Amino acid sequence: MIPRYSRPEMTAIWSPETKFRIWFEIEAHAGDAMADLGAIPRENAEAVWKAKDSEFDVARIDEIERETRHDVIAFLTHLSEIVGANEARFVHQGLTSSDVLDTTFNVQLTRAADILIADVEGLLAALERRAREHELTPRIGRSHGIHAEPTTMGLTFARFHAEMQRGLRRLRTAREEVATGALSGAVGTFANVDPRVEAHVCEKLGLRPEPISTQVIPRDRHAAFFAALAVVASSIENVATEVRHMQRTEVLEAEEFFSKGQKGSSAMPHKRNPVLTENLTGLARLVRSAVVPALENVALWHERDISHSSVERGIGPDATVHLDFALTRLTGVIENLVVYPENMMRNMDRFRGLVHSQRVLLALTQHGVSREAAYALVQRNAMKVWEEGADFLSELKGDSEVRAALSEAELEDLFDLAHHTRHVGTIFERVFGAA
Amino acid sequence: MIPRYSRPEMTAIWSPETKFRIWFEIEAHAGDAMADLGAIPRENAEAVWKAKDSEFDVARIDEIERETRHDVIAFLTHLSEIVGANEARFVHQGLTSSDVLDTTFNVQLTRAADILIADVEGLLAALERRAREHELTPRIGRSHGIHAEPTTMGLTFARFHAEMQRGLRRLRTAREEVATGALSGAVGTFANVDPRVEAHVCEKLGLRPEPISTQVIPRDRHAAFFAALAVVASSIENVATEVRHMQRTEVLEAEEFFSKGQKGSSAMPHKRNPVLTENLTGLARLVRSAVVPALENVALWHERDISHSSVERGIGPDATVHLDFALTRLTGVIENLVVYPENMMRNMDRFRGLVHSQRVLLALTQHGVSREAAYALVQRNAMKVWEEGADFLSELKGDSEVRAALSEAELEDLFDLAHHTRHVGTIFERVFGAA
Amino acid sequence: MIPRYSRPEMTAIWSPETKFRIWFEIEAHAGDAMADLGAIPRENAEAVWKAKDSEFDVARIDEIERETRHDVIAFLTHLSEIVGANEARFVHQGLTSSDVLDTTFNVQLTRAADILIADVEGLLAALERRAREHELTPRIGRSHGIHAEPTTMGLTFARFHAEMQRGLRRLRTAREEVATGALSGAVGTFANVDPRVEAHVCEKLGLRPEPISTQVIPRDRHAAFFAALAVVASSIENVATEVRHMQRTEVLEAEEFFSKGQKGSSAMPHKRNPVLTENLTGLARLVRSAVVPALENVALWHERDISHSSVERGIGPDATVHLDFALTRLTGVIENLVVYPENMMRNMDRFRGLVHSQRVLLALTQHGVSREAAYALVQRNAMKVWEEGADFLSELKGDSEVRAALSEAELEDLFDLAHHTRHVGTIFERVFGAA
Amino acid sequence: MIPRYSRPEMTAIWSPETKFRIWFEIEAHAGDAMADLGAIPRENAEAVWKAKDSEFDVARIDEIERETRHDVIAFLTHLSEIVGANEARFVHQGLTSSDVLDTTFNVQLTRAADILIADVEGLLAALERRAREHELTPRIGRSHGIHAEPTTMGLTFARFHAEMQRGLRRLRTAREEVATGALSGAVGTFANVDPRVEAHVCEKLGLRPEPISTQVIPRDRHAAFFAALAVVASSIENVATEVRHMQRTEVLEAEEFFSKGQKGSSAMPHKRNPVLTENLTGLARLVRSAVVPALENVALWHERDISHSSVERGIGPDATVHLDFALTRLTGVIENLVVYPENMMRNMDRFRGLVHSQRVLLALTQHGVSREAAYALVQRNAMKVWEEGADFLSELKGDSEVRAALSEAELEDLFDLAHHTRHVGTIFERVFGAA
Repeated sequence: MIPRYSRPEMTAIWSPETKFRIWFEIEAHAGDAMADLGAIPRENAEAVWKAKDSEFDVARIDEIERETRHDVIAFLTHLSEIVGANEARFVHQGLTSSDVLDTTFNVQLTRAADILIADVEGLLAALERRAREHELTPRIGRSHGIHAEPTTMGLTFARFHAEMQRGLRRLRTAREEVATGALSGAVGTFANVDPRVEAHVCEKLGLRPEPISTQVIPRDRHAAFFAALAVVASSIENVATEVRHMQRTEVLEAEEFFSKGQKGSSAMPHKRNPVLTENLTGLARLVRSAVVPALENVALWHERDISHSSVERGIGPDATVHLDFALTRLTGVIENLVVYPENMMRNMDRFRGLVHSQRVLLALTQHGVSREAAYALVQRNAMKVWEEGADFLSELKGDSEVRAALSEAELEDLFDLAHHTRHVGTIFERVFGAA
Repeated sequence: MIPRYSRPEMTAIWSPETKFRIWFEIEAHAGDAMADLGAIPRENAEAVWKAKDSEFDVARIDEIERETRHDVIAFLTHLSEIVGANEARFVHQGLTSSDVLDTTFNVQLTRAADILIADVEGLLAALERRAREHELTPRIGRSHGIHAEPTTMGLTFARFHAEMQRGLRRLRTAREEVATGALSGAVGTFANVDPRVEAHVCEKLGLRPEPISTQVIPRDRHAAFFAALAVVASSIENVATEVRHMQRTEVLEAEEFFSKGQKGSSAMPHKRNPVLTENLTGLARLVRSAVVPALENVALWHERDISHSSVERGIGPDATVHLDFALTRLTGVIENLVVYPENMMRNMDRFRGLVHSQRVLLALTQHGVSREAAYALVQRNAMKVWEEGADFLSELKGDSEVRAALSEAELEDLFDLAHHTRHVGTIFERVFGAA
Repeated sequence: MIPRYSRPEMTAIWSPETKFRIWFEIEAHAGDAMADLGAIPRENAEAVWKAKDSEFDVARIDEIERETRHDVIAFLTHLSEIVGANEARFVHQGLTSSDVLDTTFNVQLTRAADILIADVEGLLAALERRAREHELTPRIGRSHGIHAEPTTMGLTFARFHAEMQRGLRRLRTAREEVATGALSGAVGTFANVDPRVEAHVCEKLGLRPEPISTQVIPRDRHAAFFAALAVVASSIENVATEVRHMQRTEVLEAEEFFSKGQKGSSAMPHKRNPVLTENLTGLARLVRSAVVPALENVALWHERDISHSSVERGIGPDATVHLDFALTRLTGVIENLVVYPENMMRNMDRFRGLVHSQRVLLALTQHGVSREAAYALVQRNAMKVWEEGADFLSELKGDSEVRAALSEAELEDLFDLAHHTRHVGTIFERVFGAA
Repeated sequence: MIPRYSRPEMTAIWSPETKFRIWFEIEAHAGDAMADLGAIPRENAEAVWKAKDSEFDVARIDEIERETRHDVIAFLTHLSEIVGANEARFVHQGLTSSDVLDTTFNVQLTRAADILIADVEGLLAALERRAREHELTPRIGRSHGIHAEPTTMGLTFARFHAEMQRGLRRLRTAREEVATGALSGAVGTFANVDPRVEAHVCEKLGLRPEPISTQVIPRDRHAAFFAALAVVASSIENVATEVRHMQRTEVLEAEEFFSKGQKGSSAMPHKRNPVLTENLTGLARLVRSAVVPALENVALWHERDISHSSVERGIGPDATVHLDFALTRLTGVIENLVVYPENMMRNMDRFRGLVHSQRVLLALTQHGVSREAAYALVQRNAMKVWEEGADFLSELKGDSEVRAALSEAELEDLFDLAHHTRHVGTIFERVFGAA
């Protein structure tokens, strides 16, 4: 996890303190359930809760782990130091380390997903606000980086909104994927722990019991989780790429907000670089890099091997922390994006009407010209614009074959921008719902 | 796509014939909707349907494409050869090539998903049958490849069933992701085509209209689609790895079915190699390899660039064809897997009772021995078994400190396999539902 | 492998005919070596060469394979049909299938590498020609997509040349990686075949003997091979991305060659889309997608498992065929790229001298102004250019604090483009070597 | 970077202190070169060296960066606090931030490579020692996890040695790839800095000047670097997988060293789990995950965009630190691996001679039996061993058709293990060189 690209709310989920706190809750709730079932004495179950308000001593636990080389045993030893060795003697009874570790990991992922979901909701609000603000701001649509036909800036924001709505659904599905817990013992048979203990602990932690576990919770869930994050990361890259293009010197249709104190370059003071969205492009690559190892983690040997663990120590915090940072950074970029409608109009006018060629082509065929002939007519006039800088409308007006099919007024009507924006309201309704 | 790893039902989806058939349907249905709206003459819309039962001449279309370097124009030219140039002159009016291409791609992916879903359903049936057959067949559970505690062969099949149920849900979600169509024109504004045309065509093709498209359908959908396939592929690898381990010479708890004519090796006739599941392991890698390029396809430039297209010409057929093949091959492997319960029992007995050490440990603590002391007691007897080949139960019976806590009968009870399988029914209910 | 993105020279390497031809050569050369060693009769070794000019009947071999389910046995059976069962009875003696398969795969990869190396050499020639042509064609350098300082078009071509020189070295190293053969028997011990047989066959095929093989040639070699291809693919994407940016409507500093018959779009005749370089961007993703499965192929079980095989049936042809196609397509793009020096100059002048701000800053500090003060001076004049469209040089001349440090003539000199190109010759010498 | 999987020697390379130290050296050496060229006063160049023995105050630099949002400016400001604002006023003259950042990154990668190279050399020593120790320790070779023919434990170590020799070469090549520096100014034209400054700084830092840079050093170099690390990581996984298989309960041919204090499991004291090699398997996945983002970093926009930077802040430290840790951990595993030759022999004898079937087959054909007939003879006897537990040699001796070709003594000779190991010396010479 790169501190520079992290926010405290998310990193807190991955702190040792949080981890030990969840471990404690699992053990303590499990104790309650065992006492309910008469499997252990009630007073021992209750005694464990003495540690509820204690700070666990991470350094002490680390010290014990260096000796025992086993993290859960180290924690349990430390817990018994707090609770009392005799009182704590039933803690973890019938459980296996993975019961605690895997359930904890899923609690962490679920909490991380909650933050990511809230992040996307914030991003959606920003995108909707900017979309409505620029619903009808004309802008040239581009395919292949080449001018095509008019669209609006609002539609650009709106399509990112729709994409992030899908991202939201994917994150919610991802959260459901990992919102399970398992306390099923060494190989998942509940040999030494009643399934009702699992049910109780899961309920307390907001999880569903894993229908069938081995020593571990199956890792296809986590692969699906990280894949969902990766798709969201690619959507971030998609938005970032658009901003970067808009901010190009020759395009300059928008700029990232540039605060007063900020220096763009040590040497070129006039430069305003889209460094936030370039950074988001890189962060998207980082978040995505979790997918392949997560997929490789699925095929564990028999009832478990521990190869997944080191991977998850990396990608668990990294992917969630960096995605959280990226989503909030992107929200800021969208909220503060400086949009230049006049530059958009200037770019639109660059080729003196050529963007309307498609409408002209269509009108010609609708007035009885064959498709191929219409194509030839449009092309010969378009080429004069392209090569000689002529004005497209004037050329068309002066082309007798064109005029045989279309009047001057009809031609002028074909160059009306409003034609291109008349369905924007319909699209907005589709994306944002009816008002 | 590797012919050796393909089935005709799936490859047919990706044939030129199927592609042109879908192109035709899109154009013809679009014509109907345009006629309904009065945008084109009814007779022209109807005339197009003349091609309904024609075979499209792929070679002829390819020939035109070589000249025009544009596949949709080549097809439309060929279509007008069939329908008549005059009759066909309104075909494709107001549409852009991508309207046809993208909607077609999503029809293909949706059909491919339907096959994959049926494949998984078949696999689930096989897994359930084998799970119920071996519900209580005892087998040693292993963590880290090392014997842990008893489980059953049925639980192994059942957990693969649960994993594939999740795979089924993921594929259904993936299908929904891509079950959209778009006929929204050059930059997605419906400038020259009414949104009702899109609605009509989508309804006829079983798709939902894409809420907001540009020139293309947004590629985050496809990234999510291929990611879902990749997770399912990893689940296949998970099952395959288990079979490969079971078939190892020293383990030999199961074997892939070995037909009479089959030669395992040119040189070693006694060998029965798990070549199908090894092959599945490789196919899983191939299917997964679609994820990264699919993620890289998301961030297209502005309203589209065509970088995604070559990628999809590869991964579209490859991932679906290979996954279809892999799923059906795996179903065959499961259906025909030769299971050796006697070998499972022989392996279980290998360490003369050591697999019961966890229960002994637990019983000791329940009889008042401290956790650390119980651990030491179990360990010192276990080491004799491990190092000297002693029998664990006998050693325990002969250990006076153990016996101070546990009677001979109590010790014997701890070695009862039935203890480990008493919750199998509960787990089966969770996985397969109540009978 | 996608036929659309393939060239016959490369696909021929991967045909069944080529494969069987190499199999034959391995078996026949091995026979010679065995006869030399007295291991088999000379006449049997010689008899095999009867098949030298025969066409192998692929359909017949497939038919036998369907029965035996073993490809090498199927081929050997067919070979004995040609040579005579008695004459062929020593063929393959002491060998294992993988001896033939792996050595063949490496022959194919080596030949493929030879083509790729020639491709890059062709690309280098095109890049050098264009670099020299535009050595001093001024063009604005851009960082973050924003104008920075002047550079030349020749330097752009030259840096791609340098990058492709590295690609060439990587491909040569990759070729060396896989230019090994192994005929070491079932587990690599030469139990039934003399190491001298391997030496002879390798020499005949232009390979080195693998120092130590198991049943297979170790797959780290192939992982390194495909990784090298992936890096070259990314370099192609790098060049393609530059061209795509240059062809953007607002930039238009270069265009892919646009042949007369080619239609850019069915609807917008004026559009000239950089579809070749967009396609190359996608092909780069496809070629790169071989890396992860190739890496996953390295860790085979013990002396081999066959999981790598299905992967290699895919990535072997796909990565080499698509990379070959991409390299030759890119060569064509570079050779025919239409460069617009006048547009480059127009873009350079866009901000009325701001590109020279770095030099002004430097000159100020060299004339005794503190770094911070110089920065402030440059910034305040630059902002007038940026916000009010003023001319930078005029502003500077009119700024008394600037003029306290720099004379009018000194200022003018700072705006001389030649300053930026005076080391181009040095760089060209570094890249292309001294004339 | 995961602290648990890091060693201080490698993490030190990535500390802020190291980074600032290298920045300082670049600036100071650059100053010397500029003074040599008369570009700045000698006393200013010398004054900078005052900071040579100063500790840079990381917190102070961070504080300045928070204000300026520019890391290099923050450092230069801090440097001028140490050196004196007037003395430091020529520092960084004509350079751009990337000159410092990229050259530093390459210094770090080069130093990291040096450690990795030393790591592999240590691993090679361990592998050679264990190979020679077990040169002739018989062990069954396995393909597909199934017994094939005899080999030796020494050959297993030797093949890992050969693979790691290739890893060493790849790391050396990778080091060369990134051992370049660039001080070429804002867009790589040396507009404001003489190429001789670059030459001097590179010489002092042990780098080669980058032949042609833009604002940045081209990222294909780094992609190749991380790809090399990924291949080495896969080789680690290959070795780790072998150990994990050897340690399986049913195989038990070797075990990771198990120290006295270590607890294998909280519940099953008899378990000795191959947790180190499982961990290495996971670490290999982590190291490999750097490849895709590194490849995606290659295609920067024009003379640079900064998308690569966040990626490299992650993968730079992560991949080198984790690979360093993995290599040294693996060296420990190899050095301390507990090998069980008697278990190897027990496993070899499992199928009562079937491992010799290949030799019998060969001998039959050499004694005039046709290939197909010999195959049938071997198979029918082998099946009795397989299905009825018979002894292979006895069965063969009792088969009259076999005996028609081979005498009893000839048959016995075919079962001699020494036959399989007679070329081990040759192979060792190939791998380790002649003594």
